[in-house]
Amino acid sequence: GVLGSGDFARSLAIRLVCSGFKVVVGSRNPKRKASLFPAAAEVTFQAEAVKKADVIFVAVFREHYSTLCDLADVLAGKILVDVSNNTEINHHKESNAEYLASLFPACTVVKGFNVVSAWTLQSGARDGNKQVLICSNNQEAKRIVAEIAQVMGFTPVDMGCMSSACEIENIPLRLLPAWKIPIFLALGLFLCFFTYNLIRQVIHPYIREQKNKLYKIPIEVVNTTLPCVSYVMLSLVYLPGVLAACSQLYYGTKYRRFPDWLDQWLQHRKQIGLLSFFCAALHAVYSLCLPMRRSHRYLLIDTAVKQAVEKKMTIWVEEEVWRMEIYISVGIIALGLLSLLAITSLPSIANSLNWREFSFIQ
Amino acid sequence: GVLGSGDFARSLAIRLVCSGFKVVVGSRNPKRKASLFPAAAEVTFQAEAVKKADVIFVAVFREHYSTLCDLADVLAGKILVDVSNNTEINHHKESNAEYLASLFPACTVVKGFNVVSAWTLQSGARDGNKQVLICSNNQEAKRIVAEIAQVMGFTPVDMGCMSSACEIENIPLRLLPAWKIPIFLALGLFLCFFTYNLIRQVIHPYIREQKNKLYKIPIEVVNTTLPCVSYVMLSLVYLPGVLAACSQLYYGTKYRRFPDWLDQWLQHRKQIGLLSFFCAALHAVYSLCLPMRRSHRYLLIDTAVKQAVEKKMTIWVEEEVWRMEIYISVGIIALGLLSLLAITSLPSIANSLNWREFSFIQ
Amino acid sequence: GVLGSGDFARSLAIRLVCSGFKVVVGSRNPKRKASLFPAAAEVTFQAEAVKKADVIFVAVFREHYSTLCDLADVLAGKILVDVSNNTEINHHKESNAEYLASLFPACTVVKGFNVVSAWTLQSGARDGNKQVLICSNNQEAKRIVAEIAQVMGFTPVDMGCMSSACEIENIPLRLLPAWKIPIFLALGLFLCFFTYNLIRQVIHPYIREQKNKLYKIPIEVVNTTLPCVSYVMLSLVYLPGVLAACSQLYYGTKYRRFPDWLDQWLQHRKQIGLLSFFCAALHAVYSLCLPMRRSHRYLLIDTAVKQAVEKKMTIWVEEEVWRMEIYISVGIIALGLLSLLAITSLPSIANSLNWREFSFIQ
Repeated sequence: GVLGSGDFARSLAIRLVCSGFKVVVGSRNPKRKASLFPAAAEVTFQAEAVKKADVIFVAVFREHYSTLCDLADVLAGKILVDVSNNTEINHHKESNAEYLASLFPACTVVKGFNVVSAWTLQSGARDGNKQVLICSNNQEAKRIVAEIAQVMGFTPVDMGCMSSACEIENIPLRLLPAWKIPIFLALGLFLCFFTYNLIRQVIHPYIREQKNKLYKIPIEVVNTTLPCVSYVMLSLVYLPGVLAACSQLYYGTKYRRFPDWLDQWLQHRKQIGLLSFFCAALHAVYSLCLPMRRSHRYLLIDTAVKQAVEKKMTIWVEEEVWRMEIYISVGIIALGLLSLLAITSLPSIANSLNWREFSFIQ
Repeated sequence: GVLGSGDFARSLAIRLVCSGFKVVVGSRNPKRKASLFPAAAEVTFQAEAVKKADVIFVAVFREHYSTLCDLADVLAGKILVDVSNNTEINHHKESNAEYLASLFPACTVVKGFNVVSAWTLQSGARDGNKQVLICSNNQEAKRIVAEIAQVMGFTPVDMGCMSSACEIENIPLRLLPAWKIPIFLALGLFLCFFTYNLIRQVIHPYIREQKNKLYKIPIEVVNTTLPCVSYVMLSLVYLPGVLAACSQLYYGTKYRRFPDWLDQWLQHRKQIGLLSFFCAALHAVYSLCLPMRRSHRYLLIDTAVKQAVEKKMTIWVEEEVWRMEIYISVGIIALGLLSLLAITSLPSIANSLNWREFSFIQ
Repeated sequence: GVLGSGDFARSLAIRLVCSGFKVVVGSRNPKRKASLFPAAAEVTFQAEAVKKADVIFVAVFREHYSTLCDLADVLAGKILVDVSNNTEINHHKESNAEYLASLFPACTVVKGFNVVSAWTLQSGARDGNKQVLICSNNQEAKRIVAEIAQVMGFTPVDMGCMSSACEIENIPLRLLPAWKIPIFLALGLFLCFFTYNLIRQVIHPYIREQKNKLYKIPIEVVNTTLPCVSYVMLSLVYLPGVLAACSQLYYGTKYRRFPDWLDQWLQHRKQIGLLSFFCAALHAVYSLCLPMRRSHRYLLIDTAVKQAVEKKMTIWVEEEVWRMEIYISVGIIALGLLSLLAITSLPSIANSLNWREFSFIQ
């Protein structure tokens, strides 16, 4: 049974019908809404629908849960699946599923299917994320809903008791939570190093020698800033592991929890590492663009003309030649190795490595 | 039971035996073929085999289905699994499975396993695509075959009624259908812009000033063409969404189907976007190669020599310097952002994002 | 039931409790260890625990299996799950699971869960590899353990009889086995070509003309070596397929096994191809860096100055210009195509292609 006639209710009914279930849809206005649902699904009044079904998907907004209270008698003993989402993280004190359970104490409430979009339901499980997170205080009800999910082509994941409902409801609302700190960290570091390089390469020569080097800002200053950020970020990837090891040695046990800040840091290592790689890659592209600039061309021709006028051959400074050759060469190798690290962090590749291979590559 | 003794029949029998099933193979020449099958599988005459099995995989070509008609009596009431493929899309009027069902009306026919190759069957489900698409008019038979697929390590996907058989049989024959239109679009745009740039950069100076600039064709003309293609393609990614929104606003409903051309367009956005990124990346590489060319070197030295002979210092045109610095700088940032978009379109990463994160990145 | 109180036993108990199982932990010192386990798991003496459970996870080291012999009577008839790993490949003659089975002939032993790390158990199956390889001589016991794995959120993979236990135990110990030969091959080829280019570009001019070209080693010599390696590797990808076809034509059958060396070679094609792409990509980056070098700058200015002093205009050698333009242009296209090949070898993309699409791209 499906209660509701919104987008999600529709997509759910279509998918259930396609997976071979008998579906009955409960609506307050069955005649008007019937055309929205597939012909194989019976659309009727809510009380009728509830009577005919054992598992009922409650596809109405939390605000309208109370309107279902008239159905409390017919709902008694049934399994209610709460598929709702919130619009804000931790908007309400208790999760929608717990609120539904408190309204209908005679029903068994299961939280699930909220991480699946109406679009995924319609387009089939072949595309998109196939996991359906499920939680409930009743093992049997959870098992039944998990089986329905499996027949529909999803992968049910047991998330335990109803107290996880809040966590499950927050999942569709999260916005790259693991990236927030690393990105602000990278921006902060970039700002610091950029200011330092700006003073050193542009402001200082202007004040001391009245030379206008403002044109260096968009490329040269950025290009000197990026590797600094990249290096510091890379060191921040490997530092917390060392601190964790020290802490374990100091306390003589590995069962003691790390302090919160260290725990957070350890969990963000992958993101920090990827940002470090991103900065390194940008630095490579910026460096390669240097000879394309008009300023580079002007300076080069200028040097040539000056020397020609003075009939002076170029002085071949062996040390400078070698410094540049080695600098570029080491840079390429470092970028190559960092690329390998970045590639192995792709989920589909990381999953095919065992622990020994992963630590070998690291 | 497995009818047939080709590659697929062999691999199927091996895999079924490995998954713990009792397998009986029906062949017209059991003695000669027995050596091809694993020892645990019983190889016998077709009628014998059919009697002993409840679920029978029909691993023979469509052309030979009629040769099984002698077995119609013993086959009655059994589940036949049609695993066949065609050599051309929509080769026959009705799908192989429907044809099989029409030959044996007393049997329950299930379509399935045709998307799995003999190689995947043998190498185990650990590699390769693990989905097995199944369809049948009989829910119970479908359930049994789905369970067999699951035990064999595959992920059964319910595709509904027998009428989907045609679609399932076409899957192994499709050749990147989603890419056809975007690639022809990109080639068309490339041709147009290439012709325009060729006329402007090579033919026009030749006619007007008799200057031979043919050497510009392989790199410079291509390099000016690529970003034009990339820009137009990128705009074609975001345009249909706007049109769709306008159409919804105009008709005042989101339940009205879009016209076919808009629907097609909306579905090809990902491919158009990736081609746009590919052109942008090629443009970046081409641009970086410009200073490597011999012609660039000749022109540079020439300018230097001319100026030296005339004892004229280079004129530092601040505007040109800035234009180039900003041009390169913005180009790098655009390419970096486009790379992020391209990376998030990788299936394994796209699947780990929720809808809110996906739209944020877009 | 879980026997043992190490990291793995703990994580296993936590996960089992979270998945809704009743868990009893058997420890030699239940009082001291109880605090390590979740409150919902009962921690008691080993004999007690074994009596209460039907399926028992043996989470102790192989060396301590014999200490469980006192429990042989209470263990009789139960299902023992061997989750152990070795520290070396093929360390012992027989696999741990077979050793356990020989110690407790009255029990049914199932090998499984050893490929899952304690970390994966705790963090949930949402991340990391979700496959649990299972093998046993008893189909029923295997089915029960597979169901437990499924409820815990893993994907059980049936690996057949107990004789596969050795193979399963070696999986967590393997270290990129498919990459060993291709990497040594690439290193070998690199060394050969590097030596040849070193002699040609550095040693020969030094001996003949006393010119010090040592500065060319880090970049120019490496840069001429990389495409040679890349080409040879690429040809080694497609050569074995030709040899295999010849062998099939010669023997007139496709059922004859290829000789071992050819079989190995065929299986390493993907890795050889990826290394070929890696060398090609490095070659592209090295080439792009050439104009950034100080030596390039010196030589350029030198030429300009020399010509200016002699008041000689540059001679525009049309052939050299064209050669370079075409060389760079073809190089970019080749790298672009090779990138497409490399991208389609990513597991998540390769899985979404059918056989026809894969061979089309190849």
